[in-house]
Amino acid sequence: MTWLDLPADHPFGLSNLPYGVFSTADSEPRVGIRIGDHVLDLAPCAEQAGMESYAVWQQTSLNPFLALGRPAWTAAREWLVEVLTNPARRDCVEPHLIPVDQVTMHLPIEVADYVDFYASEHHATNVGRLFRPDSEPLTPNWKHLPIGYHGRSGTVVASGTDIVRPSGQRKPPTEPVPVFGPSVRLDIEAELGFIVGGSTELGSPVSVANSDDHLFGVVLLNDWSARDLQAWEYVPLGPFLGKSFATTISPWVVTSDALRVARVPLPGQTDPTPLPYLRGEPTDDGASTAYGLDITYEVEWNGTVVSRPPYRSMYWSPAQMVAHMTINGATLRSGDLFGSGTISGPEKDERGSFLELSWGGQEDVTLDDGSTRTFLEDGDTVILRATAPGADGTRISLSECVGTIRPAVTRT
Amino acid sequence: MTWLDLPADHPFGLSNLPYGVFSTADSEPRVGIRIGDHVLDLAPCAEQAGMESYAVWQQTSLNPFLALGRPAWTAAREWLVEVLTNPARRDCVEPHLIPVDQVTMHLPIEVADYVDFYASEHHATNVGRLFRPDSEPLTPNWKHLPIGYHGRSGTVVASGTDIVRPSGQRKPPTEPVPVFGPSVRLDIEAELGFIVGGSTELGSPVSVANSDDHLFGVVLLNDWSARDLQAWEYVPLGPFLGKSFATTISPWVVTSDALRVARVPLPGQTDPTPLPYLRGEPTDDGASTAYGLDITYEVEWNGTVVSRPPYRSMYWSPAQMVAHMTINGATLRSGDLFGSGTISGPEKDERGSFLELSWGGQEDVTLDDGSTRTFLEDGDTVILRATAPGADGTRISLSECVGTIRPAVTRT
Repeated sequence: MTWLDLPADHPFGLSNLPYGVFSTADSEPRVGIRIGDHVLDLAPCAEQAGMESYAVWQQTSLNPFLALGRPAWTAAREWLVEVLTNPARRDCVEPHLIPVDQVTMHLPIEVADYVDFYASEHHATNVGRLFRPDSEPLTPNWKHLPIGYHGRSGTVVASGTDIVRPSGQRKPPTEPVPVFGPSVRLDIEAELGFIVGGSTELGSPVSVANSDDHLFGVVLLNDWSARDLQAWEYVPLGPFLGKSFATTISPWVVTSDALRVARVPLPGQTDPTPLPYLRGEPTDDGASTAYGLDITYEVEWNGTVVSRPPYRSMYWSPAQMVAHMTINGATLRSGDLFGSGTISGPEKDERGSFLELSWGGQEDVTLDDGSTRTFLEDGDTVILRATAPGADGTRISLSECVGTIRPAVTRT
Repeated sequence: MTWLDLPADHPFGLSNLPYGVFSTADSEPRVGIRIGDHVLDLAPCAEQAGMESYAVWQQTSLNPFLALGRPAWTAAREWLVEVLTNPARRDCVEPHLIPVDQVTMHLPIEVADYVDFYASEHHATNVGRLFRPDSEPLTPNWKHLPIGYHGRSGTVVASGTDIVRPSGQRKPPTEPVPVFGPSVRLDIEAELGFIVGGSTELGSPVSVANSDDHLFGVVLLNDWSARDLQAWEYVPLGPFLGKSFATTISPWVVTSDALRVARVPLPGQTDPTPLPYLRGEPTDDGASTAYGLDITYEVEWNGTVVSRPPYRSMYWSPAQMVAHMTINGATLRSGDLFGSGTISGPEKDERGSFLELSWGGQEDVTLDDGSTRTFLEDGDTVILRATAPGADGTRISLSECVGTIRPAVTRT
């Protein structure tokens, strides 16, 4: 029980404690945690409390803290719980609490490599039907490995950054050649983003069981997608400009520790069973090292919740994604970010992209104000939100991931 | 004419002056240029010469220098030529010359985003025939845009780094399901790598004509490729683990300034003509802003030169790659690296990958010692080399890109 004046069911209570990078009007960006409706400025608090490693939080990104690895993350969490529950510690905490409405949030990490997976069977099936109507919706490899590809690290942006409609080539089916102009099928992808800490050596794969050493935490991720650019460019080497103009992540990194009670079994991987390097093993508490996450997600489009994608329906575990990504000897670096891929459940109102919600632009989505949409229009705002069960029986918040569409920059 | 005792036709003469990052037995990595058979330690030389900005070279990567942009690069080159040709400057240069055999070379840049293009028509045609025998070899988009995708920045390694054979999933045609194990079709891709300097703002495309502001220089790049892993994984989102285990680049960055006289017209883009944003414009000297490069390349396999891919045969210009990569508003960052894609000419002995040289493993490549190869065996060494015409009528060297294959790490 915290000595702070905090309702027991606050979504940023003691069982959450997410990390972010904030600044105030007269200060530089640095690391804080969110507790209730305040941000705790970690470095001066830790310095006052006599922690030697406080300087790791006096930084403009979480990367130096990520580099310390799992033992330091665990120790930091234990220390945080101690100072927030022991009334004798009030004096080193209270001076460093800043109301959340007085801070500006920044990108929490300096992104090293960004990988995007494709781990929802429902999403991959829907997209397969829409992009390749004459083939089986799932490619033959889909249930054997978590398909992924690299995205552009340099255009991962903080929540709230406006998204300029991208221009590029698209080839309408009625035209013999491609045309140039602003995307007319601008879309979202509602995902989770996993933030990696602790570097590895070249040639040293990370097993499913050891992935926890590198999974620091989770953000909400919107992989903005220009479907018309993507459809024309993506064969044979995959998506490029249809994705690389912007990817938004939420400001608060909810730790794997906070999400431990949200772990659930995967929906099932029996037909086929994955190769041994991708298999989970039983844990002491009867669960599996290849776990799912019971995270409830919502997609709000101009004020209307249009979808509630259930993360627990995802086919592949984040632990399996780590094992796959490194099985060829590729390194991990602190600050690596990987997306789950669009989260779509089996139901229509559980789809995590507008491509799927509008079934390729063929079916209108009706918003609460009576307007209709297929893809994004200029001025539209999308807010992603999610919650998960917390250790104290309440629900913890993953905060929000927000973006508003601005018109394309005119080009002749 | 330099006052150094240097043969007029030295491949690292005054018209070359490539940048790299070196260390000696008792010193930290820092920036130098190569002149003849020496490395000039730039920071102390510049400090002694009274240059204010010398500290930009007292760094472990070229990135801070890259961030200064084109005017600073031009000024640095003019200063270098001055101190190396004016005998009165001997005293601030000579104490800082280190024999090249006494230095260790490092990765010259901290790689921001790594993109790999696919700009050789001959390579794309060959690979199309091999990977997709039932389709047209070139996809319909190929001549409309320079196809590219993002690779893994974190596994770009310095020349000389051993390459551990990657393990992963492959699906032999005779098997109903994929098998796990070391790659049996390990290959090279002989490319040029272009190094970007000077950051741009989100939403600000760089035109073909302005790409020179951001093209700092060129390295040799070996995009090691596990063809069996790649073939099984790459549909629908492109290559991932088949490439992400390692990419080697050469130590010396030959500047765009040094390569100015190597510019040649592209082979031709008339059927179709690219969209306006990809078109070159005439320059004052009658050339085009969308230029090719007359770089002569060779691929040596265990001491035998097996191929001489001609860079002048490449279909797309590096300037067009920059324009395409940013047309959707994506930023450039100092330290971005993009590969040309495998360089293959029209002739068999001009192919830049062993996949093509062995025609998918069906035709043996015979080495000078009488041994035969299709793909790489453990212990094999590949050296890439290239030269280009220099301003003084001699040829300048792009140095070497070297890697030796080590056995796969055993895994159950």
